[in-house]
Amino acid sequence: MKKVKKFYLSEKEMPTAWYNILADMPNKPLPPLHPGTKQPIGPEDLAPLFPMELIKQEVATEKFIEIPEGVQNIYKIWRPSPLIRAYGFEKFLDAPVKIFYKNEGVSPAGSHKPNTAVPQAYYNYKEGVKKITTETGAGQWGSALSFATQLFGIDLEVFMVKVSYNQKPYRKSMMNTWGAKVVPSPSHLTEAGRSILEKNPDSPGSLGIAISEAVEMAVKDPEARYALGSVLNHVLLHQTIIGLEAEKQLEIAQAYPDIVIGCFGGGSNFAGISFPFLKNNFSEGKKTRMIAVEPESCPKLTRGQLRYDFGDTVGMTPLLYMYTLGHNFMPPKIHAGGLRYHGAGSIVSQLLGDGLIEAQAVHQSEAFQAGVNFARTEGIIPAPETTHAIAQVVKEAEKAKKEGIEKTILFNFSGHGLVDMAAYDSYFSGKIEDFSVSDDMIKENLKALDKLGL
Amino acid sequence: MKKVKKFYLSEKEMPTAWYNILADMPNKPLPPLHPGTKQPIGPEDLAPLFPMELIKQEVATEKFIEIPEGVQNIYKIWRPSPLIRAYGFEKFLDAPVKIFYKNEGVSPAGSHKPNTAVPQAYYNYKEGVKKITTETGAGQWGSALSFATQLFGIDLEVFMVKVSYNQKPYRKSMMNTWGAKVVPSPSHLTEAGRSILEKNPDSPGSLGIAISEAVEMAVKDPEARYALGSVLNHVLLHQTIIGLEAEKQLEIAQAYPDIVIGCFGGGSNFAGISFPFLKNNFSEGKKTRMIAVEPESCPKLTRGQLRYDFGDTVGMTPLLYMYTLGHNFMPPKIHAGGLRYHGAGSIVSQLLGDGLIEAQAVHQSEAFQAGVNFARTEGIIPAPETTHAIAQVVKEAEKAKKEGIEKTILFNFSGHGLVDMAAYDSYFSGKIEDFSVSDDMIKENLKALDKLGL
Repeated sequence: MKKVKKFYLSEKEMPTAWYNILADMPNKPLPPLHPGTKQPIGPEDLAPLFPMELIKQEVATEKFIEIPEGVQNIYKIWRPSPLIRAYGFEKFLDAPVKIFYKNEGVSPAGSHKPNTAVPQAYYNYKEGVKKITTETGAGQWGSALSFATQLFGIDLEVFMVKVSYNQKPYRKSMMNTWGAKVVPSPSHLTEAGRSILEKNPDSPGSLGIAISEAVEMAVKDPEARYALGSVLNHVLLHQTIIGLEAEKQLEIAQAYPDIVIGCFGGGSNFAGISFPFLKNNFSEGKKTRMIAVEPESCPKLTRGQLRYDFGDTVGMTPLLYMYTLGHNFMPPKIHAGGLRYHGAGSIVSQLLGDGLIEAQAVHQSEAFQAGVNFARTEGIIPAPETTHAIAQVVKEAEKAKKEGIEKTILFNFSGHGLVDMAAYDSYFSGKIEDFSVSDDMIKENLKALDKLGL
Repeated sequence: MKKVKKFYLSEKEMPTAWYNILADMPNKPLPPLHPGTKQPIGPEDLAPLFPMELIKQEVATEKFIEIPEGVQNIYKIWRPSPLIRAYGFEKFLDAPVKIFYKNEGVSPAGSHKPNTAVPQAYYNYKEGVKKITTETGAGQWGSALSFATQLFGIDLEVFMVKVSYNQKPYRKSMMNTWGAKVVPSPSHLTEAGRSILEKNPDSPGSLGIAISEAVEMAVKDPEARYALGSVLNHVLLHQTIIGLEAEKQLEIAQAYPDIVIGCFGGGSNFAGISFPFLKNNFSEGKKTRMIAVEPESCPKLTRGQLRYDFGDTVGMTPLLYMYTLGHNFMPPKIHAGGLRYHGAGSIVSQLLGDGLIEAQAVHQSEAFQAGVNFARTEGIIPAPETTHAIAQVVKEAEKAKKEGIEKTILFNFSGHGLVDMAAYDSYFSGKIEDFSVSDDMIKENLKALDKLGL
């Protein structure tokens, strides 16, 4: 029969500062460049987009940054999140591994995204911002930010990729319930949207287009700001609450991870679980392996290049130094919408370039298979994104078994799958396709960057 | 800015026994009768349906019944559940009330249902049962039992009302993910199903028909048993873990409820939150009011009669002494599928008959309105069922404000609404209808019982 063990932290034991890995990195990431001048951007360039406190966090050098009381307070709706020993899954895998997972699915929006949505809403609130714009693909980020802005009385307008807007009505309803306005993108509300619709009235939209629309709307309204759910330094910073809690909880469990695993879209959930343990690699000489897991269909970390590229498709955002497949790369339509992004955050990219973290890619069919086995042995249904991390846990367990070496594995259960059950339905009816990306296609997209002088 | 306070229990502080209200009731409920002989049924009548330990619990007289370690263990996947002070909602209501809610939405299935699904699976497992059958309407119970049986290695076959099977694919996928077989009912697998389909090949099904199919299949297979998600004494017993935890948590919060509120379908979530406080009314002379909240469209407690009736539509189950609208009553299709049941559990019915608890009915539009206001001020989206409890909280707060008397209110947040967002979508697009049930229709259904000599 199944054995269960959760490791607790009381609210009083919740960490009161985020960990800023910029302070410890041997090589700092290259700065973002202005898309026009190609010179490093300064705070004044970002001021129309973000509140000053977030701009400061983007370049902060202190090792720890205090979590404001107003943020800690909202965190307590669901934090500290549980750390669970996966006895059931361990038994199923029958390998010499201890597996722990941090359950971020307990947040009201069902994922780790509120960890940064709440401080982003908070700092905007403190600086008198009345309205925020953002984009969302499948809707995880949009719903998390709706949850957060509502609690601070800030209006939110979400540009949701049109194909998802039509296919994922549940996420849209969540955003409406939390008071946000949701607009299918491309829309007629912005120049960017109108120009796309002129060329193609039936455009299904893309994350790149939605970013352009959200940024444009924020820039044109002096009372509004823009918010991003991954990639940027301040977003990764906020997510470190995950690993900092896990560090304390593992101490209670009298364990320490040999391997830390997170799925990878823009980098925020992976950074959240792994950076606090990387901190100990830096300062205490620990040798924990950190593995970022991306889909084979969007393999920027394993097959992309580390170079400057745009954050969006249209080319409106600053240039970021990052692992990229080229901003025109259009990832196949896998179910893990949150992992369909052409680039990676600068910090994570630099760490990977320096060999301080690892990256692996898995196909979605093996991810779903791992996810279903996890659900059946642990009782919790993972989001399609999260199943990628679980697939890598399976591989590491198999390796440990083969080598006969005991391992302790920690992974981030970044979200539950209850709003994504249609994806499981596809899996059970044999409709899950594995997409491969050809070397030629990647080369071509990267060559296009050469031509732009990037 | 929003203030948040959660009240913790560690796993060690989790109650280790359920509270059996049968021990304390001044008047015991009348026994269930055999549908044929109309004599009280004995354990041997129930043996084809339930494992012996559950049959014993159905008539147990001890005040506390120990929770087996194997059940406590699985409970720890999500229990103890948090008790939260609803500061945000309190501020919104601007009334002299302290509001606490017990968040049962944190379970892997998203509702309170696993509290009984787990012990039911456990006792079946201990008695060597290889397969369980059950029915489900909207899918809350079916998914909770799938979660539980999978962990004990028991096969599960769920008869899901056909109209829901087609309209609620997410719940079906959850059951599949947890390894259950889901059959749209009426089906060709049972005589009951075939007889219905012969008369009406396009029958949309009903909970009554699904119960008949599940019972028939269990009875015909000596290795199989049947499971029910509400109404029965043992189900209510298992749910008391909710109120027992809340009792301890309120002690930490230095508060005690004047009013305890739960929504009402068959009675299990209401019983779970209220019985442990009723215990203190019995033994310590406390005067807490317990309010069961049903939909206006299915008003068995407020407008039904206390008498013997069948648990299902077809008339296969034992006769239960309960508040009923008549087993042929077909509730209008409100979104709170879990509250669409013609009868109430015998214990709750007796308590209501004796004036020891109260009942109120609310319309679904006011329920959704309360639910949306709650989601926007507390950050958590309630299930359509749960919004009925919240609507009553609003009424009690308004009353306290009018009377100028301070009140402490505890309610059961029985489940989250993330798998029911289509209902919110209907609400926002103005498609929510309020159904009234005429006195004549109720009278007619109850007259039919007279004719059957019930």
